[in-house]
Amino acid sequence: MSNSVEEFNAYRAKMNDKILADNNKIIKRIFNLDTNAFSEGVLDKKTKELLGLVASLVLRCDDCVKYHLETSHKEGLSKDQVAEAMSIATLVGGTIVIPHLRRAYEYWEILETSR
Amino acid sequence: MSNSVEEFNAYRAKMNDKILADNNKIIKRIFNLDTNAFSEGVLDKKTKELLGLVASLVLRCDDCVKYHLETSHKEGLSKDQVAEAMSIATLVGGTIVIPHLRRAYEYWEILETSR
Amino acid sequence: MSNSVEEFNAYRAKMNDKILADNNKIIKRIFNLDTNAFSEGVLDKKTKELLGLVASLVLRCDDCVKYHLETSHKEGLSKDQVAEAMSIATLVGGTIVIPHLRRAYEYWEILETSR
Amino acid sequence: MSNSVEEFNAYRAKMNDKILADNNKIIKRIFNLDTNAFSEGVLDKKTKELLGLVASLVLRCDDCVKYHLETSHKEGLSKDQVAEAMSIATLVGGTIVIPHLRRAYEYWEILETSR
Amino acid sequence: MSNSVEEFNAYRAKMNDKILADNNKIIKRIFNLDTNAFSEGVLDKKTKELLGLVASLVLRCDDCVKYHLETSHKEGLSKDQVAEAMSIATLVGGTIVIPHLRRAYEYWEILETSR
Amino acid sequence: MSNSVEEFNAYRAKMNDKILADNNKIIKRIFNLDTNAFSEGVLDKKTKELLGLVASLVLRCDDCVKYHLETSHKEGLSKDQVAEAMSIATLVGGTIVIPHLRRAYEYWEILETSR
Repeated sequence: MSNSVEEFNAYRAKMNDKILADNNKIIKRIFNLDTNAFSEGVLDKKTKELLGLVASLVLRCDDCVKYHLETSHKEGLSKDQVAEAMSIATLVGGTIVIPHLRRAYEYWEILETSR
Repeated sequence: MSNSVEEFNAYRAKMNDKILADNNKIIKRIFNLDTNAFSEGVLDKKTKELLGLVASLVLRCDDCVKYHLETSHKEGLSKDQVAEAMSIATLVGGTIVIPHLRRAYEYWEILETSR
Repeated sequence: MSNSVEEFNAYRAKMNDKILADNNKIIKRIFNLDTNAFSEGVLDKKTKELLGLVASLVLRCDDCVKYHLETSHKEGLSKDQVAEAMSIATLVGGTIVIPHLRRAYEYWEILETSR
Repeated sequence: MSNSVEEFNAYRAKMNDKILADNNKIIKRIFNLDTNAFSEGVLDKKTKELLGLVASLVLRCDDCVKYHLETSHKEGLSKDQVAEAMSIATLVGGTIVIPHLRRAYEYWEILETSR
Repeated sequence: MSNSVEEFNAYRAKMNDKILADNNKIIKRIFNLDTNAFSEGVLDKKTKELLGLVASLVLRCDDCVKYHLETSHKEGLSKDQVAEAMSIATLVGGTIVIPHLRRAYEYWEILETSR
Repeated sequence: MSNSVEEFNAYRAKMNDKILADNNKIIKRIFNLDTNAFSEGVLDKKTKELLGLVASLVLRCDDCVKYHLETSHKEGLSKDQVAEAMSIATLVGGTIVIPHLRRAYEYWEILETSR
């Protein structure tokens, strides 16, 4: 698995375009909702990103974790905040979360050093 | 399934006592961690409760959801905040989350009317 | 857990109403998609119901299984067709699916005898 | 949920009979395998029961847990052995396993007192 | 992860041979059932392949998805039919299914262009 | 995915160090528990390793499976014992476990030939 932020995003973008070009209504709307759900609401964006991160981590979806780590980083969340959220995910989800935690730490490091 | 807050808490307390009386070190420490993880840190208690709620909901653990709904309620989170967190869980976890969402709404209503 | 079709549907309807009254956009749209996804498309309704049933069964969501059993029954799918779909779910999802299979068989019987 | 051993077994037996009467080959063979997999092999029955118990607990299947608790009890496994196995399941599977652990402890107590 | 159909199948075949050479009865029979379950029955092969695909996708098993995409392709299912089935899986299983949907679209494209 | 035992362990060790350097109490304690849970108790180490292996396999965590395969190998468990445990995991967890079973067999072979 490549850890490069650019590569990850390029693949995501390329495949998302192909999926959306397919004009399947259900999938299109789910993609749309995904953008909407994490925008400012009664909860701020930072909190929502952490919610998305924890949901992704307990469900052990590496790509979803990467995505929320990147947006968390962009929103200005600190490493300590992200780590605290991930510690809750590890406790709730159990030690099977740990391999995903390793990859999450690795990706966060790349995000921090890549600018 | 009983929805009464008291009944739910009484069963939880009774069985937790029996489990802890058993003196299994691993389980005792996991119970301990559970208390620690949701105390004030770089993230505040409210945020942590929402993280616990979303993790519980996407993993479809009704009892865990109830527990975090009650602590969320005690911490003063509003219904709108809780509902927004749960909408993220429903999107990330899919429509199989909906039956648990129904029971969560029902339990929140009980929490609001029971004082 | 009540097995009565009416009770199950009444609870579902009551709680869905409360959830939708809440006006959370994300949840509303997910509910909407749920109706859309199972309407006639390049795949017919019967096939789609079986897909929903199998997805629900491998994810071990009893309420979702009940829902799709009822719509499968309304669409005129036979017990043999439903059972064959469920056998695939049991093979793919493993023996942990069996307790849900028991409840599914029980509910199908109720659906067949309740008219 | 009824905790009575007899009630649980009666429902299981009744529904298993109905499922098997249906003559679906795939399901019949899976039921058969289930009996075979836990018989004496290079691993003894006790070890296999504990494996089945831990698999059931991390996958959070209450009925499967009950079944393996009963067979573990019959095979003469002690409460300490069962508890130690369940502590591994709780660590690996996370705190979402705890509600199932409560019900497992409750059921074990019933098994111990019901003879 | 290699996307080449040949490489994927070669690895599958090589490891399946090693597993089956081991003569473990339970595993052998499960492999056998897997062949049986998707053969013509009261449901036709195409429908069964779609059921296998949706079950694999909601359980987020990339290799299982690839396998059912290939057999779906061989059975003559169209991209639209496969996409519609996958849209149901995405709705039921939530946005964590999306990374697997990307890889599924990529693999389908390879299947379509590889002959 | 690299199958080399050394590479796998080096990555694990490197990332574990970084995670633990972070001084997050919850995560540190979970790592600690992980060491404790698999030490000799009323159940011996071999049995515990098999329990960890089966839990990891039904939860489909390849890295966790590799880890427990390596410790099982060190503890002197035979291939037949490991295979029998994994057959229970495959039956309980379903055919979606099979791709992980392939990788487990491959890794075991590497463990056996690498000394």
